Amino acid sequence: MSATKDEIVAFMAQEFPQVGYQVEQVNEKGAILSREIGVNELRPGGTVSGPVMMSIADVAIYVAILGRIGIVPLTVTTSLSINFLRKPSSDARIIADCTLMKVGRTLIIGEVSLYSEGSDDMVAHVVGTYSVPPASVTHGLSKATT
Amino acid sequence: MSATKDEIVAFMAQEFPQVGYQVEQVNEKGAILSREIGVNELRPGGTVSGPVMMSIADVAIYVAILGRIGIVPLTVTTSLSINFLRKPSSDARIIADCTLMKVGRTLIIGEVSLYSEGSDDMVAHVVGTYSVPPASVTHGLSKATT
Amino acid sequence: MSATKDEIVAFMAQEFPQVGYQVEQVNEKGAILSREIGVNELRPGGTVSGPVMMSIADVAIYVAILGRIGIVPLTVTTSLSINFLRKPSSDARIIADCTLMKVGRTLIIGEVSLYSEGSDDMVAHVVGTYSVPPASVTHGLSKATT
Amino acid sequence: MSATKDEIVAFMAQEFPQVGYQVEQVNEKGAILSREIGVNELRPGGTVSGPVMMSIADVAIYVAILGRIGIVPLTVTTSLSINFLRKPSSDARIIADCTLMKVGRTLIIGEVSLYSEGSDDMVAHVVGTYSVPPASVTHGLSKATT
Repeated sequence: MSATKDEIVAFMAQEFPQVGYQVEQVNEKGAILSREIGVNELRPGGTVSGPVMMSIADVAIYVAILGRIGIVPLTVTTSLSINFLRKPSSDARIIADCTLMKVGRTLIIGEVSLYSEGSDDMVAHVVGTYSVPPASVTHGLSKATT
Repeated sequence: MSATKDEIVAFMAQEFPQVGYQVEQVNEKGAILSREIGVNELRPGGTVSGPVMMSIADVAIYVAILGRIGIVPLTVTTSLSINFLRKPSSDARIIADCTLMKVGRTLIIGEVSLYSEGSDDMVAHVVGTYSVPPASVTHGLSKATT
Repeated sequence: MSATKDEIVAFMAQEFPQVGYQVEQVNEKGAILSREIGVNELRPGGTVSGPVMMSIADVAIYVAILGRIGIVPLTVTTSLSINFLRKPSSDARIIADCTLMKVGRTLIIGEVSLYSEGSDDMVAHVVGTYSVPPASVTHGLSKATT
Repeated sequence: MSATKDEIVAFMAQEFPQVGYQVEQVNEKGAILSREIGVNELRPGGTVSGPVMMSIADVAIYVAILGRIGIVPLTVTTSLSINFLRKPSSDARIIADCTLMKVGRTLIIGEVSLYSEGSDDMVAHVVGTYSVPPASVTHGLSKATT
């Protein structure tokens, strides 16, 4: 029931055309996205704005979920928590590396490590929780477990 | 050492000109901000995008902090946690009502209730943590307590 | 489908006999619990241990949920987030004041303000998320909305 | 300025004698702790109680901090966030594997993966934030950076 990278890229381009990220990888365990940083993404002092980092992390978990359970448009974010760890570079792309930690019947939880491209130092860490329509994850209600 | 609403509005207009919110109220305990919702703030299905809600909550806490400790540009967000509770209206302004829960020597914590204007049902709830330069909050190091 | 305070107290005494709290109030919107603080609940320096505060907050949300949807033993905590704001008193009871923020079909979210009895200064703030079996909250599947 | 495992074990045994965990490993990057699970740690249904898992995660980050910055008793937890992912085993020890994500001048952030011993499936994930006295982490104020 999973979706391929091409299917996800096509779906995202149609549904979220304005968001400027790129899907680098996606498989059943997670996804890696990147986003260019320009003047619109910067805050005074040359730091990448917090909402930009939250946004790419949110999308990275969403893409990872699609990669796992297929194109399920009714998936919605129920919570997102971010810790800002270091000042990101103002002239490098942001990389979001998402791992799904739990794929339950109605709840999916992913974590995302954010980096400035070219550096191994995590700039922010995100945990997000997503609600999916119950039928989406299971192969049959009788086998469903949370 | 606190700043007035006019001082804060002038500072924010200079530092964050691109963000489309309005400061409705600000005092030593908190702040209320509003933001127009247009097509750029919406997601498919007519819901306000999550990052838009995180963004106004982040700014609301920042404004409340300025109202409490004065214009301290080095204040930075260290963490932000949001729970999405209900689908916001697609044709009402988002209202962010922030209360400062803790004003320590280096750490300030605020909570924000988000509403669609005209409704009493909270659409999202945010807790954010901010780091401030140590000297900013105290009236003298000998009196400082966290 | 809600439960009364007496029904909840009886249920909790049977299921969680070892936990030393008291249900002060419970209704459809929330619950207030208290807990005595003795030497077992203190950390060096005379502060109440963090896990003790997390524990009473967790139970307060659980009790509030029972007050709202009735005795549903399969309700489980899916996430809990606490911010420690001030040092609690070492010789006052801890009061946990819970408000339910969202009661969805499968997900319930509550917030808890923790105080040392006799003081208006919040010592900690908690947000907790709980998963409930789908049928528990609804009055009929056809009317169910998240 | 870091502390050895033996120094930390001695300090913890003196300060927190009642907590039943064991320090398995500790170095500058993190720490691994374990805790026996007995009837006192279980909830009805045979699951490990949430506060027990929060408690060992809290201690694991604390131990990792001591391993990094030395014995600094004034370190305090400022926030802790846990996601419960799977039901832990009722008859296996809980293992807490902590990695420090940020070691700043006044703020240290760690994440913890919790497992039931013998299984690779994470049962819970924790992010905790700790405040340390400013002088503890730096080698001299003039060189301090957050």
